[in-house]
Amino acid sequence: MERRKFLNALGGVSSLLMTSPLLANQLKTTGFSRAEQSSVMSGIWKFTVGTPEEITPQSTRSVEPSLSGLKSLPDIKVCPVEPLGELNKRGVVIKIPLKKEEYIYGLGLQFQSFQQRGLKKMLRVNSDPKIDTGDSHAPVTFFVTTSGYGIFIDTARYASFYIGTTKHKPKLTSKKNTKEDGNEVGPLNGAYLRKDVDSENEILVDIPHVEGIDVYVFSGPTMLQAVQRYNLFAGGGALPPRWGLGFWYRVHKNLKQDEVYSMAKYFRDSKIPCDVLGLEPGWQSKSYSCSYVWGKGFPDPAKMLSDFKKDHFKVNLWEHAFVHPTSPIYKDLLPYSGDYEVWGGLVSDFITKEGRQIYADFHRTEHVDIGVSGYKCDECDNSDFTGPWSFPELSQFPSGADGEQMHSLFGLRYQDAIMSVFNGKKERTYGLIRSSGALAAPYPFVLYSDLYDHKTFIHGIAQSGFSGLLWTPEVRHAESNEDLIRRLQTVVFSPLAMINAWYLKNAPWKQIGKKANNEGHFAANWEELESKCREIIELRMKLIPYIHGSFVQYNQLGIPPFRALVMDYPDDPAVRNLSNQFLLGENMLVAPVVAGESSRKIYLPEGEWYEFWTSKKYAGKTEYTIDVPLEQIPVFIKAGTILPLAKPSLHTDDPKSWQLTALVFGENTKPAILFEDNGNYAPELKEVRLIWDNKKHEGHLEREGKPSDHQYSVIAWKFII
Amino acid sequence: MERRKFLNALGGVSSLLMTSPLLANQLKTTGFSRAEQSSVMSGIWKFTVGTPEEITPQSTRSVEPSLSGLKSLPDIKVCPVEPLGELNKRGVVIKIPLKKEEYIYGLGLQFQSFQQRGLKKMLRVNSDPKIDTGDSHAPVTFFVTTSGYGIFIDTARYASFYIGTTKHKPKLTSKKNTKEDGNEVGPLNGAYLRKDVDSENEILVDIPHVEGIDVYVFSGPTMLQAVQRYNLFAGGGALPPRWGLGFWYRVHKNLKQDEVYSMAKYFRDSKIPCDVLGLEPGWQSKSYSCSYVWGKGFPDPAKMLSDFKKDHFKVNLWEHAFVHPTSPIYKDLLPYSGDYEVWGGLVSDFITKEGRQIYADFHRTEHVDIGVSGYKCDECDNSDFTGPWSFPELSQFPSGADGEQMHSLFGLRYQDAIMSVFNGKKERTYGLIRSSGALAAPYPFVLYSDLYDHKTFIHGIAQSGFSGLLWTPEVRHAESNEDLIRRLQTVVFSPLAMINAWYLKNAPWKQIGKKANNEGHFAANWEELESKCREIIELRMKLIPYIHGSFVQYNQLGIPPFRALVMDYPDDPAVRNLSNQFLLGENMLVAPVVAGESSRKIYLPEGEWYEFWTSKKYAGKTEYTIDVPLEQIPVFIKAGTILPLAKPSLHTDDPKSWQLTALVFGENTKPAILFEDNGNYAPELKEVRLIWDNKKHEGHLEREGKPSDHQYSVIAWKFII
Repeated sequence: MERRKFLNALGGVSSLLMTSPLLANQLKTTGFSRAEQSSVMSGIWKFTVGTPEEITPQSTRSVEPSLSGLKSLPDIKVCPVEPLGELNKRGVVIKIPLKKEEYIYGLGLQFQSFQQRGLKKMLRVNSDPKIDTGDSHAPVTFFVTTSGYGIFIDTARYASFYIGTTKHKPKLTSKKNTKEDGNEVGPLNGAYLRKDVDSENEILVDIPHVEGIDVYVFSGPTMLQAVQRYNLFAGGGALPPRWGLGFWYRVHKNLKQDEVYSMAKYFRDSKIPCDVLGLEPGWQSKSYSCSYVWGKGFPDPAKMLSDFKKDHFKVNLWEHAFVHPTSPIYKDLLPYSGDYEVWGGLVSDFITKEGRQIYADFHRTEHVDIGVSGYKCDECDNSDFTGPWSFPELSQFPSGADGEQMHSLFGLRYQDAIMSVFNGKKERTYGLIRSSGALAAPYPFVLYSDLYDHKTFIHGIAQSGFSGLLWTPEVRHAESNEDLIRRLQTVVFSPLAMINAWYLKNAPWKQIGKKANNEGHFAANWEELESKCREIIELRMKLIPYIHGSFVQYNQLGIPPFRALVMDYPDDPAVRNLSNQFLLGENMLVAPVVAGESSRKIYLPEGEWYEFWTSKKYAGKTEYTIDVPLEQIPVFIKAGTILPLAKPSLHTDDPKSWQLTALVFGENTKPAILFEDNGNYAPELKEVRLIWDNKKHEGHLEREGKPSDHQYSVIAWKFII
Repeated sequence: MERRKFLNALGGVSSLLMTSPLLANQLKTTGFSRAEQSSVMSGIWKFTVGTPEEITPQSTRSVEPSLSGLKSLPDIKVCPVEPLGELNKRGVVIKIPLKKEEYIYGLGLQFQSFQQRGLKKMLRVNSDPKIDTGDSHAPVTFFVTTSGYGIFIDTARYASFYIGTTKHKPKLTSKKNTKEDGNEVGPLNGAYLRKDVDSENEILVDIPHVEGIDVYVFSGPTMLQAVQRYNLFAGGGALPPRWGLGFWYRVHKNLKQDEVYSMAKYFRDSKIPCDVLGLEPGWQSKSYSCSYVWGKGFPDPAKMLSDFKKDHFKVNLWEHAFVHPTSPIYKDLLPYSGDYEVWGGLVSDFITKEGRQIYADFHRTEHVDIGVSGYKCDECDNSDFTGPWSFPELSQFPSGADGEQMHSLFGLRYQDAIMSVFNGKKERTYGLIRSSGALAAPYPFVLYSDLYDHKTFIHGIAQSGFSGLLWTPEVRHAESNEDLIRRLQTVVFSPLAMINAWYLKNAPWKQIGKKANNEGHFAANWEELESKCREIIELRMKLIPYIHGSFVQYNQLGIPPFRALVMDYPDDPAVRNLSNQFLLGENMLVAPVVAGESSRKIYLPEGEWYEFWTSKKYAGKTEYTIDVPLEQIPVFIKAGTILPLAKPSLHTDDPKSWQLTALVFGENTKPAILFEDNGNYAPELKEVRLIWDNKKHEGHLEREGKPSDHQYSVIAWKFII
């Protein structure tokens, strides 16, 4: 294999990126070809094999890297790993060495697995996967290792990752083996077999039908820092507006304007917090593609949105991204769409500027200008399992993408189109998306799925954090009161706390049964269940300052707000396969419970931990089996934490939502850092610090000036020991 | 898109094939490019787009078409369909029109679906699929339509079939639509949208990363004849030796030589028929690849095989096709194997002559020469679901194939290697294989799976017949006595009637529970269950003459012995989705029952039918719900049939197995045609006819000369009205 040369052009963001001198060839060559490496930014290197495709996640991105965030990370001078490449008639193969005790995480939203070493994954966009082959709503060609670096294969192709699953065959030699030769395979009919490398210890990435590829290496030195660097390279994590962190409720798909008013009134009257109402404007055609024109059920959307704004509700609209002939933008989009329809609608080529802009302009003038806060984009995830629900891989698009590439990029570039609406108005949004992909951290969109297994949903929270993705375990219906409570407890500890009641006319706590619910027959004791659910939703409102602080870390430092324990404790073997509990920020450990469990195992990593509900203290590095009373989702706070809890309020506009009780867990606390978000497009994010004097046993809030109604104040301190 | 030229070379069998003049361009052009068609054989055409790959099922085949069989089919002069092709930077797309009421079947062993219109399938070799995406042990790029033709895409790539699932977007025009323009889409902002074709009515085949493809069209005129033509082009169907149609029993994997003797003795002593014993010779390494050297448990295999031969047992050996370093052929195979190992073993390149021959030679000298009758090749089906159980798609082989192509061909070319052993000795074999593919009809190998859902297993019998495949719903364990009986009833109506007790030390009827079975604790009433099972196995022995006759039709005419009803009754809408009952030959309809059912629906197509057990007469074109007593699997015989049933015997060497009772179902019977198979390599297959005189009410067997012990005789006639 001849030596390959590097291409130094960096695609879409080349103007931003520094090129530093090539590093010395300090790494050993194996069978594949070496490639010279180029430095992209501090701690980020690019390896180019052959001539990469024109359409990739990197070449079509529109968000710029967060240079300020990247500066906060250690300046790493030496690339920690050298991917090797092979160009052959099939395409490109990339080879990355694996150490003996090295574990691999990421590759996007993987519902069926957590640690990836020992598995093969073909990263194909495909909704609701039931088998662990790599099909995913949101496959991401990025992984991170416990050795403290990440690898991003910049392709929109369905690449296959063989993660320590392959072994080269040995070579025949006449020389007797010695230990130095590598693996002994023993004598064979007078000759000897020798393995030069233990090829089980490597990752192979198969990218067929390309003539080249860019591979990016993100250094740490820790695993978390490698993820941070990847997220910051993508542009830094999304920072949802505070209202986005409040409670969401999606009403029944058929509800008309006046019925949505009634539902809004119900929430306010019954004192159940709600910041965002989701609704379907009735603009989908019979064939499921959309016109984006308000349906007959909504005779005066501008007034409705204005009324809801006064009552402190944001409104999120459901849509499909496929454009029906009755849509006013159909004719304009025709030349900027793929050659195949979905449900009788056009597939906009969101990779083209025109495709994004035509779509965005109409959304701005018809929705966002009158007060719509965001969107939920459904079913853009290429289900092969449910028949003709998407465009074929053989589709061709004006941008030059084929259907395979477009599947990998469709959700991403849709998010660009919607983002551009809000960016243009200097507003913020927060919404939902059924498909995403690489370099997605900056997008204020949360993934969800038609699947509904509660355990899988919990796994999704832990697993998505490796790949710059946000995931909501939305509550739809429940099998029992217990199931409803357990699911609601989980979702309030997630990026987007939502009940998606699109097939229930009344709130699920009024009646669990779907038919009875829609007929208005409420359960005998529904007020009792409502009350329990209210309490859980109030818990979400209390948590917003802490969650918001974690999202600021995502935004500025690339630290995923929801993440698996292994990201913070990569050297602890006990957390290697742990995805049924997760961290919310660095100080809160959440271990959700599913219906039917009266106890569960939890593992607490190093340090001391306080159970949130009982304040009971637990030693770390220990597994416990704990009782799990129905009212209490197991939550543990790391000793040394000052946890701010807001007064529960009906919405985040309420000044109460800024009034904090500070829980001080143990001696020797560190200050809690919060950020005052004024809700503006580019918020100032004034830092405030809650400080506990461990000697005087009193706390104070450190900030400049006196707080206004919409700034933090501490109304009580509670010391817990 | 420029007009493509045809390549006339036909790969591996070009010397055999006639080329007839090109036909006139009588078919309308649509968006894709036309290709001139070349006639391959009577009723078979080839369409070539671009430059096809060198490694395909057709180019690597070793069996010649059955010219004599093809001559028996109607000589069709005009190609019934014109596939169009598009060469683009992605690869090749093939387009085939679909009529309004046209239904599609085939694509290999598809467990999750039957009729394929409305579905997308990516035909990828992958064991035990749980979702209907096209993953299969035996994907076959051939389908057949109710319009009476078949299409074969000659590729070893993972092609995707969009079967009436795609729709082109319409075009904008300034001209008002008329009905003649095609589909109306209506006015649009002063312009009009027009669809030139209703593109939902087409099949698209996406074959990425190829520069060309050959597409074969097999005419009918009926759907069954199209399947026949495909099977005959492949070489005609396999004709198992009579012993292969007897009863098979695979013993526990750890059984040693003396224990296998004991098991054989048990079958003879307890008067349970058995023709074939399957065993594992203990030659797999700890890592699962094989040496092909008899293990320590078998100190004298030659004597064992000789003893078993005397006792009329054939012996089938389990193996993997991956070659362990301790195998004597390892060193020779090293240069003729892929660059990656499986379980520490070589992946022989069976596409190369050397790869096949080295493997075959050792099997001949060490096994077949001392009496082994055949093999069961396990786990060659590329499971992505169970970790590193196969070679990567990026593998490279000396033949030039990559891993993707090799997956599609590995099972096929393995069968060539094993066939060559028996062909070389002028012997016949019958065995089992976990992966197969295109043009497989001539191979005397039956597919099986690690799946175990009884309904899926029944579906497999009906579904496999479209694609030149044989499938056995093998019995392994059972949840209950009822489950055992129901599964056994199904398997005796299949191509290979086998209990695969590889994890049970005793016959399953002695003890259903696995643990107790292996500890030798038998159920209290086991003799009763044994007796019921013996009866079912005896039924298999009775059926052999009829099954054998159906296999001769497979061999000589390409008619699948086991097939779905739609193949014989393509115009009957009631059978369009019917895969829980099937035809065995044209006169027997089998409707298996699964445990837990006390009744089931059956549909009888046109004609009159007799229930096998009760002789009750049923009108056709009618659905019935019938009671299903445990002892009776529902079987229906078409009126006018003479059904020969052999005397049950312990093995097919027994002269009793040639002694027939002829059941005469109704008036106006047609003669039953049987074939006397002398068991030789190229058997003479003397035709004998059972004829019933409908006036005299007496029957006779028409044949030349007096029968010997190993020729058919009718010992009783039974008239049923």
